[in-house]
Amino acid sequence: MGMPFELNTMIVTKGKEIRLDDDRFSLKKEGYRLYPVDIPIEVRKTINSKSSGVAIIETLVLEKSHTSITYKYITINSTN
Amino acid sequence: MGMPFELNTMIVTKGKEIRLDDDRFSLKKEGYRLYPVDIPIEVRKTINSKSSGVAIIETLVLEKSHTSITYKYITINSTN
Amino acid sequence: MGMPFELNTMIVTKGKEIRLDDDRFSLKKEGYRLYPVDIPIEVRKTINSKSSGVAIIETLVLEKSHTSITYKYITINSTN
Amino acid sequence: MGMPFELNTMIVTKGKEIRLDDDRFSLKKEGYRLYPVDIPIEVRKTINSKSSGVAIIETLVLEKSHTSITYKYITINSTN
Repeated sequence: MGMPFELNTMIVTKGKEIRLDDDRFSLKKEGYRLYPVDIPIEVRKTINSKSSGVAIIETLVLEKSHTSITYKYITINSTN
Repeated sequence: MGMPFELNTMIVTKGKEIRLDDDRFSLKKEGYRLYPVDIPIEVRKTINSKSSGVAIIETLVLEKSHTSITYKYITINSTN
Repeated sequence: MGMPFELNTMIVTKGKEIRLDDDRFSLKKEGYRLYPVDIPIEVRKTINSKSSGVAIIETLVLEKSHTSITYKYITINSTN
Repeated sequence: MGMPFELNTMIVTKGKEIRLDDDRFSLKKEGYRLYPVDIPIEVRKTINSKSSGVAIIETLVLEKSHTSITYKYITINSTN
């Protein structure tokens, strides 16, 4: 008996993140995923984008074949 | 950089589960833990107890150095 | 970027195990799988078989899209 | 019953890597660790060092409370 999931080492938003407050966002992805919680992780818009910054995942929720995270930026890369 | 956690193959309640409805419970444990979601998993009161039954974990939440699960029994072992 | 794998809470041999010595076996499975190492885990021939016994996984190897384990029985269920 | 381990998103060598051939190394660490296999992962000498490059982990072995990996650089950062 097995539970399929994906080990993720980066947050790839595909522009689907929702801003919760100034520097905190939530993101829902399909499937069960394991992200590191409480340690710095890179954020990108797509897998081949430049880095948007570095964030800390504060909450990881697995439910109904989806994974939801909330994360807070610790550094944001300016795009200007 | 690493995130310490524990791979769990059984739900050990220590009597701290909270009944949500007839056969559904929630349980909060210290630390980050990985439980299989959506597949049958044995439930015990303590690690050396007899099995209380078999449940399906429906939700797994990692947050603030704790792990919360909700689970629903699919078979319950009578204690009479 | 993600690495797909499967969280396994039971050893399902499908009869493909190779005996290494009296009570120690090796088994190679497709894909990357995470099994608990050093703690008791149930062994079955198929997912719906009766339990063959309980084993301890001593080695877990992920390589070339396969997972190899060696395990040692701590209890074997007689089939007579 | 649980198996403690650490989710790792970076290879931190502490100078203990062993060169196997031109761009392939092995490294043994204490404890059980889960690293992503087959996907790019950053290599550093210490957690606060600059990046030494990016590698692909080809083999992950968990055994006797240690984790051994072999990895191959795909990009190496010059230190000149």
